[in-house]
Amino acid sequence: MSFTAANAARVDVLIVGAGPAGLMAANALTRAGVNIRIVDLRPTSVSYGQADGIMPRTMELFNSYGLADGFFKRANQINMVAFYNTREGGGIHRTAKGPVINAPTARYPFITSLNQGAIESMFLDSLGGHGIIIDRPTRPTSLTLSKDEKELQDPNSYPVTAILEHLQTENKEAYNETVHAKFVIGADGAHSWVRGALDIEMEGEQTDHVWGAIDFTTTSEATFPDWRNICTINAANTTMMLIPREQDKLRLYIELGLENGLIDTATGRVAPQNIDSKRLLEIAEEGLKPYALPPANIEWWTCYVVGQRVASRFSIQQRAFIVGDACHTHSPKGGQGMNVSMNDSHNLAWKLAYVVRGWAGLDLLKTYEFERRKFAQELISFDKWYEAGFSTKARSELFDDKEKKAFLAFSGLTSGVGVQYDPSIIVTATKQDSPVKLALGQRIPPKIVLRAVDSTPIEIQDMCPSDTRFKIAVFTGDITKPSQLDLLRTFAKEIFREGSPLEKLGSDAFDIFSVIKGEKDTVNYLDVPVVLRSHFYKVLLDAIDVTGTKGGKVYEDYGVPPEGGVVVVRPDGYVASITGLDEPVELENYFAKFLTI
Amino acid sequence: MSFTAANAARVDVLIVGAGPAGLMAANALTRAGVNIRIVDLRPTSVSYGQADGIMPRTMELFNSYGLADGFFKRANQINMVAFYNTREGGGIHRTAKGPVINAPTARYPFITSLNQGAIESMFLDSLGGHGIIIDRPTRPTSLTLSKDEKELQDPNSYPVTAILEHLQTENKEAYNETVHAKFVIGADGAHSWVRGALDIEMEGEQTDHVWGAIDFTTTSEATFPDWRNICTINAANTTMMLIPREQDKLRLYIELGLENGLIDTATGRVAPQNIDSKRLLEIAEEGLKPYALPPANIEWWTCYVVGQRVASRFSIQQRAFIVGDACHTHSPKGGQGMNVSMNDSHNLAWKLAYVVRGWAGLDLLKTYEFERRKFAQELISFDKWYEAGFSTKARSELFDDKEKKAFLAFSGLTSGVGVQYDPSIIVTATKQDSPVKLALGQRIPPKIVLRAVDSTPIEIQDMCPSDTRFKIAVFTGDITKPSQLDLLRTFAKEIFREGSPLEKLGSDAFDIFSVIKGEKDTVNYLDVPVVLRSHFYKVLLDAIDVTGTKGGKVYEDYGVPPEGGVVVVRPDGYVASITGLDEPVELENYFAKFLTI
Repeated sequence: MSFTAANAARVDVLIVGAGPAGLMAANALTRAGVNIRIVDLRPTSVSYGQADGIMPRTMELFNSYGLADGFFKRANQINMVAFYNTREGGGIHRTAKGPVINAPTARYPFITSLNQGAIESMFLDSLGGHGIIIDRPTRPTSLTLSKDEKELQDPNSYPVTAILEHLQTENKEAYNETVHAKFVIGADGAHSWVRGALDIEMEGEQTDHVWGAIDFTTTSEATFPDWRNICTINAANTTMMLIPREQDKLRLYIELGLENGLIDTATGRVAPQNIDSKRLLEIAEEGLKPYALPPANIEWWTCYVVGQRVASRFSIQQRAFIVGDACHTHSPKGGQGMNVSMNDSHNLAWKLAYVVRGWAGLDLLKTYEFERRKFAQELISFDKWYEAGFSTKARSELFDDKEKKAFLAFSGLTSGVGVQYDPSIIVTATKQDSPVKLALGQRIPPKIVLRAVDSTPIEIQDMCPSDTRFKIAVFTGDITKPSQLDLLRTFAKEIFREGSPLEKLGSDAFDIFSVIKGEKDTVNYLDVPVVLRSHFYKVLLDAIDVTGTKGGKVYEDYGVPPEGGVVVVRPDGYVASITGLDEPVELENYFAKFLTI
Repeated sequence: MSFTAANAARVDVLIVGAGPAGLMAANALTRAGVNIRIVDLRPTSVSYGQADGIMPRTMELFNSYGLADGFFKRANQINMVAFYNTREGGGIHRTAKGPVINAPTARYPFITSLNQGAIESMFLDSLGGHGIIIDRPTRPTSLTLSKDEKELQDPNSYPVTAILEHLQTENKEAYNETVHAKFVIGADGAHSWVRGALDIEMEGEQTDHVWGAIDFTTTSEATFPDWRNICTINAANTTMMLIPREQDKLRLYIELGLENGLIDTATGRVAPQNIDSKRLLEIAEEGLKPYALPPANIEWWTCYVVGQRVASRFSIQQRAFIVGDACHTHSPKGGQGMNVSMNDSHNLAWKLAYVVRGWAGLDLLKTYEFERRKFAQELISFDKWYEAGFSTKARSELFDDKEKKAFLAFSGLTSGVGVQYDPSIIVTATKQDSPVKLALGQRIPPKIVLRAVDSTPIEIQDMCPSDTRFKIAVFTGDITKPSQLDLLRTFAKEIFREGSPLEKLGSDAFDIFSVIKGEKDTVNYLDVPVVLRSHFYKVLLDAIDVTGTKGGKVYEDYGVPPEGGVVVVRPDGYVASITGLDEPVELENYFAKFLTI
């Protein structure tokens, strides 16, 4: 242990910023038993406005952390999108309407809206249950990384030194504190102080698109029939996007022309004296004609210029990381902000946990930037296309064949369910001749199986919670055939041979479940070798449930051949390796690439 | 207000007994704003053993009270039933296996098991949220009904006088208390003190079937493959029933022969010196061969003689009622006990609330005995058939054609979803020529519809929570046709005419929702007259959701004709009246039969 000042705190991970990205990181790391500190400059959590759209993959994430029940109780579900355009004779009319999510494998085939404050509360409650509270109002005033290469290379060292300024509050004087950390995460938003301290540049630029956003409730006099669906509205005077929200609220994004002096040319920012909520609603009222959405309560409003930028680096020396808005900014209308941010942290957290536990080297952390920066760049490409479309023409053209194809191609991206991580030390490259349809580097798609022991339908994603363990899904094939059962028994024996990762880390790092082919009326879960079933609920069945409506076709849809196979799912839910039951060595080789035990 | 002693408490409803029946009554009445007292002789709630099976209709009930989420988190789901019989050469083998629930309209097509203590906790938590706690240990020592006919006929009087003995505890001395109540509910079990005080006889008799029951966990050495399914086991030495339970426990019911002196002939009860858990497990071990379920922890065991009895009356003067085991006892193996008991209270609670609120006369309360005693008698008939079958022959014969038909016929009864209340002042008789397939007097069957405003799938049962309101489901037909829209507008106007029940009691007693035929891409919820949509979520759509898997066919499956119709659902979820949109007077006539406002 290196020397530190007597009064300096030591933590595994220091997190700067308690918005959705910082809180996701804090929650994931805390659940993983990693010692953290989290600070935020804001005296309290936000309670309204700001980001609000939650995409299908993010709902899967919430579910994997056990947070979905509370989320769905509060959130508003959006199923449809409607397109409005100018019509002859003035005013607008609906030109198309359809499902808002076009990703066939989405477990939750809709968008939800819930204000950022409620999302933050959800995490704060979870963290509170672990005894973690946010240090606030607190900000770093200095952040340095050790220059000692040896120290930087030692995963157990504390090369990060931060000075935190605890600001004055009603109850306490201001004071400074020094914290030494193994790692630091900058989750401090678009104007990230951490990013600046790390000398990381943003690449890209501001657009010249100025938008207003306003949250309000309407009255029973409302006559716009689609205000509980997402709407894109191309009116004569403006272009708008409508997002229905929880508690009967709605948000309007309203494009503001450049000609009216909204931008202060000196600062490039919106000049506040030129706009207010009244003016926003006047523009909206005109654009919605002949329909009306009379405001009852106005909860929040803002104006902004769209910036489309990605940070040049997401990490320094695998010791300091930036996540969320600190590394990418784009239009809020794609509903991506909170989602991408939380997914950044979700990607990073288990990797940090493995290094902190001494199970993996610092190289594992390189995959964070590798995976998430590529995704951020793809997102900006989408955003440019989307934003340009919004600001120049009717969105109904999305339903032209060519545009529809583009929209569908982006749907996997924007819903989050199509995110593809490229081959690396933690994602095996796809074999040319593999019959398996599961995509390596994509999240494990939802599928219903039955528990063999009692025929209860179970979502295979629910067998893969975010508990920092690798899931080893053993597709056994038909083990009523003696040769197949022999193959399975040999496999089971081999993967637990002395010195193997499974033998050494056991259920701390690995959770095994098996999926057998058979019928619920005749299956015997006891046929699976005992070492592959730590609990009787770990034996699953590819069959249809008692109602005849759920389950079945897992082998078929995943493309698992009759001889079975082994699928490794990463702790964050992404398919990492696919091997045969006759290749236990390949399974071991996969883990040897990054596990250092 | 009549004179009472200065120190005597006055309550609307006094409930004696805080088991599932008493707690269901207490919770339902408290949610309805009725002032209650609930007392129980037991110092604490039971924490293990006793009743444990929850049937499909009871789960619908829990859901209607907002209790389902917590319940499903703790309960064990049972989907399948397996039948074991003796085989040549000794021991048992499986002869059949199939779904445990055979009621096509069950929303929850399975059985759940959860110990009675957990069910009681669920209600205690809910009651605690309303500030209600159980008076315990406390018992009535005197219960009298006024002999004054005028007082008995006045719904606002307090003709029930009870003396309650608060027993001594560590913290307080014993003391007596006088309580005056408008109504009293005896929910004090099979040996009900209240039933005795009311001089109500039990009709029927004890069988000569003696059974043991034992709850335990098994070890990883278990070799019986179906122990997470319900099993009936006809062995050479005994007949058994196996029920898998929550927390990896199981229950075995084990038939004990008559020959071994288990019954004390003087008392007719099981002589405790002749049996213990060791002996029960020895019999089970022998009967399970060649399989084994080695016990790890034994949680609870008991022995009992099956009694099949129904009380001669369920109520005295519409002032005193008995519910649950106080009015019917039968074999526990049908898994009915807690279910019937809670359903008794559910049936009674809203009726009491209406009388206490001054909206209905005492006659409404006559329907409690009318509806629930008939059901209890049907249940005893089932129990005799079931118990006889258990004690004499292999249950696999259920899968013979004749027996299977009988089993299916009873499935509506035992699952609770087929319960049929006969015509009365609150259930209209079925019209001979009606095309409607919904059954009057049965619970509203589950069906998915879409919210017209945002296409979110909603279960129609969830539009009918147990909130003491009558649900008026207006099936509008195709209102893009002007004649149909005219019909609907006239109907809407008529039912709200001055002096009508809907105009007088409004949303306190009535909740209106409409179900329109149309397509989610083109529907406009604003087409429904504003008086029929108190909130935009009250307009529903008979259409299929964005996934193409949920919703649709409501008109078809309910048998609603193209010209629409009006379905009244009682506060307890039972279909009460079906009329045409052109018959607003009939709707009013229905309510005139029992509403006194």
